[in-house]
Amino acid sequence: VTAASERLRALLALNDDLERVANILSWDQETVMPPDGADARAEQRATIERLAHEALVADELAALLEELRDDEAGLEPTSDEASIVRVARRDHEKARRVPAELRAELVREASRGMMAWFEARARSDFSILLPHLERQFELKRRYIDCFEPTGDPYDVLLDDYEEGMTTADVDPVFDVLKRELVPLIDAVRRAEPVDDSCLRGDFPAEQERWLAMHVLEKFGYDPASWRVDLSAHPFASAPSPTDIRITTRFEEVHLGGLFSCMHEFGHGLYERQVSPTLRRTPLATGCSSALHESQSRLWENLVGRGRPFWNHFYPRLQKAFPEQFADVELDVFYRAINKVQPSLIRVDADEVTYNLHIILRYELERELVSGRLALRDLADAFDAKMQEYLGVEPPNAATGVMQDMHWSDGSYGYFPTYSLGNVISVQLWERIRAEISDLDEHIERGDFAVLREWLGEHLHRHGRKFTPAETIERATGSPLDPAPYIRYLKRKVADTSGIAVA
Amino acid sequence: VTAASERLRALLALNDDLERVANILSWDQETVMPPDGADARAEQRATIERLAHEALVADELAALLEELRDDEAGLEPTSDEASIVRVARRDHEKARRVPAELRAELVREASRGMMAWFEARARSDFSILLPHLERQFELKRRYIDCFEPTGDPYDVLLDDYEEGMTTADVDPVFDVLKRELVPLIDAVRRAEPVDDSCLRGDFPAEQERWLAMHVLEKFGYDPASWRVDLSAHPFASAPSPTDIRITTRFEEVHLGGLFSCMHEFGHGLYERQVSPTLRRTPLATGCSSALHESQSRLWENLVGRGRPFWNHFYPRLQKAFPEQFADVELDVFYRAINKVQPSLIRVDADEVTYNLHIILRYELERELVSGRLALRDLADAFDAKMQEYLGVEPPNAATGVMQDMHWSDGSYGYFPTYSLGNVISVQLWERIRAEISDLDEHIERGDFAVLREWLGEHLHRHGRKFTPAETIERATGSPLDPAPYIRYLKRKVADTSGIAVA
Repeated sequence: VTAASERLRALLALNDDLERVANILSWDQETVMPPDGADARAEQRATIERLAHEALVADELAALLEELRDDEAGLEPTSDEASIVRVARRDHEKARRVPAELRAELVREASRGMMAWFEARARSDFSILLPHLERQFELKRRYIDCFEPTGDPYDVLLDDYEEGMTTADVDPVFDVLKRELVPLIDAVRRAEPVDDSCLRGDFPAEQERWLAMHVLEKFGYDPASWRVDLSAHPFASAPSPTDIRITTRFEEVHLGGLFSCMHEFGHGLYERQVSPTLRRTPLATGCSSALHESQSRLWENLVGRGRPFWNHFYPRLQKAFPEQFADVELDVFYRAINKVQPSLIRVDADEVTYNLHIILRYELERELVSGRLALRDLADAFDAKMQEYLGVEPPNAATGVMQDMHWSDGSYGYFPTYSLGNVISVQLWERIRAEISDLDEHIERGDFAVLREWLGEHLHRHGRKFTPAETIERATGSPLDPAPYIRYLKRKVADTSGIAVA
Repeated sequence: VTAASERLRALLALNDDLERVANILSWDQETVMPPDGADARAEQRATIERLAHEALVADELAALLEELRDDEAGLEPTSDEASIVRVARRDHEKARRVPAELRAELVREASRGMMAWFEARARSDFSILLPHLERQFELKRRYIDCFEPTGDPYDVLLDDYEEGMTTADVDPVFDVLKRELVPLIDAVRRAEPVDDSCLRGDFPAEQERWLAMHVLEKFGYDPASWRVDLSAHPFASAPSPTDIRITTRFEEVHLGGLFSCMHEFGHGLYERQVSPTLRRTPLATGCSSALHESQSRLWENLVGRGRPFWNHFYPRLQKAFPEQFADVELDVFYRAINKVQPSLIRVDADEVTYNLHIILRYELERELVSGRLALRDLADAFDAKMQEYLGVEPPNAATGVMQDMHWSDGSYGYFPTYSLGNVISVQLWERIRAEISDLDEHIERGDFAVLREWLGEHLHRHGRKFTPAETIERATGSPLDPAPYIRYLKRKVADTSGIAVA
């Protein structure tokens, strides 16, 4: 180890410490902070984030990366050492392209936009949000101009979440999803509706928590390195790879809290199983937003909405909520939690229709970025696509174009990663089932060790060592491919809706 | 406001943000962090503390303070502006006297010493701790040498907790305490023992928490800006002046958790009531360790062990623990919680004997620093003084010289502030009672607003604007003076032990 590489590791460790401290500040704010702490917390977070950014763009880091160029050439490219230098260089060069003032303006306008969104949504008045979106879009254009022109300016935005992935990669995937799912949803709509009345009722929080903790413990939750807390919106956070925190909420009128625990467990496990050799480097976290989402969706949907899982856990669910489920057959419950039905709100959508919520947002973002759509026409365009793809008409802007926070804080390019995560989750699932032929039997016994270990070995331990495309190919054996996901959804619909699917 | 003073405020705000973030990391670790997060947390804390220190000793800060010297001369010295520059300059100059390597060594050895203390105490073997104390003492000597020689090298250590206070200030106070309290304790020992059997029994945590929260709410606890959590050792923390967190523990065999809540409330309220105009400056915190302790002791002892308080709260205590207190007269309970009895452990000591635990530690520290006592003889010297002042013989080193953590992490100079806090608390109490003649009636009604406001107005709002000596004089009307405390203790002993006191 040379002095230069040691110093590099120290600077990267500083940056990692600061990023994780920012996570803790944010976790604290969402879960335990007294409300009057908000103003000071905003300043503290801004300070830590500024220092983290300064560490990332530091001239000293630039000089070290230059000095290490020759060393790097002599290293095995997939070694930790070479990968750390490679990824650090990419992060550093990308961060340096954006002037500090523009970055500060983006952060400021993001928080202003979010505040405006709360008010605009409460009043269901898109015109309150519109000027903020317009200002942010101007900044986004300047942001895009900081980078080399690519085939599509949207690629720059996408790259912030899926490094190296472009619209040319996403478009064919989403084309397949749209082509296959729109008629599938049509067919479901024409069929006899599935009875999901058992999912509505009275679900005391204590009971749901008891059940969720049991599931999490079976999944691999360990109180030595995990926590579960309550927050308004569920999330996962990793103050360190051995300190994993997930949040949920138990709303007492449905089982959403249970499924969100499984979802967040998937995010948490990814962070938990990154190789300890990558600690305090920029590689010690999940590879990308889509790969992260593939993990949450795998545990929530492929495990948590599957028959083997419920073969094991259904008796406990009945014990937790006897009045609700004592007289409900497992099969009725299974079909209820897998019911496909077009609906208004993305976050409540089923596995099939969910993707159309995403695709329409992706298409609108593309049109906004290309200039084919003006922001003032966004609300109408949103409603029109909801009608076209899902046959649903938003009654107002609050539950239509403003239902998500993402646009208000300038997170363009993020939505597609949700559906890409779904696609990847089933690519992984097919591969896992091919390699572990008795996976269902493990799950039916409530034993998830084999699944956890497979994911650790083939995906989690690498962290950000490889690009998203490389990571997908390494873990699944093939490039991004929607075919397994389509197969899975058709099988699920046939199984639960009782309709013949081509 | 000049550009220089604006820039100064920005640098001080950076330092304050980092100090408070360090508080949050530490609060999180003590209350909620999963245990396996400890290693990464140690690194994160070291990083934040290093950055805070770098901000404090920065050359840019030195240049600004130099530039602002003329401005400062033209300002009213007690104005916020002048005080901020004055205190920042003092902090900065003091911090710069200590070389970075020495400071790093002190921090490293402190944490090694603490680890050794855990083991040494578990085995009750002082020889495990001794080499660490010797190494730390060498570093302490080098630390002392960083400063101008004063009358006594111990003054340098004391200054870290009580700025500007010296052994010449402390000695006469402790001489009076020792002269008055040793015979007082002797007299108590010869009298009929007070019956405190009602304080031993079964105190379910839920009930004690219910009672403690009720008391805290009456005191002025507000969930918009306060939290209460559990931790192994009670403490108070202020992530910001509007985010005050206290911790306690409910041990179910006594009422210690209730009294520790009152104690920590006192610390918290001090931080809560610092003037908002001092936000994000080095002045936005309590003045010194002794002044902080005066606040915790005021709420714990002068309020919480007083008759007016229990006239109001005793019925609720009986309701919380009916089996324990239904048949116990208030007067019996009052005498029990004020029972004076020499004992082994400082943190469990009563109001009177507590001070002798402190004085003997102070005397031992002085002898160590002067070289009159060698560290290898510390354990024996400790036992001898316990025998001499309290008539108690420690059965082993774990409950003798190693009962406190303070020496193991190098906190010499801190112990005296506990008794100084007691002294100041009664100076304040006499003044408050002189100014608010119906204070007892307020307390008997469970109304603490008038007390809270008096403390805010005369002490809390100033934060660190004045030195400890100035602050004491401003708030109490006189310099540090043990007479009120002695009067108070004698009256208390006469009242509760039923013995005639001169």
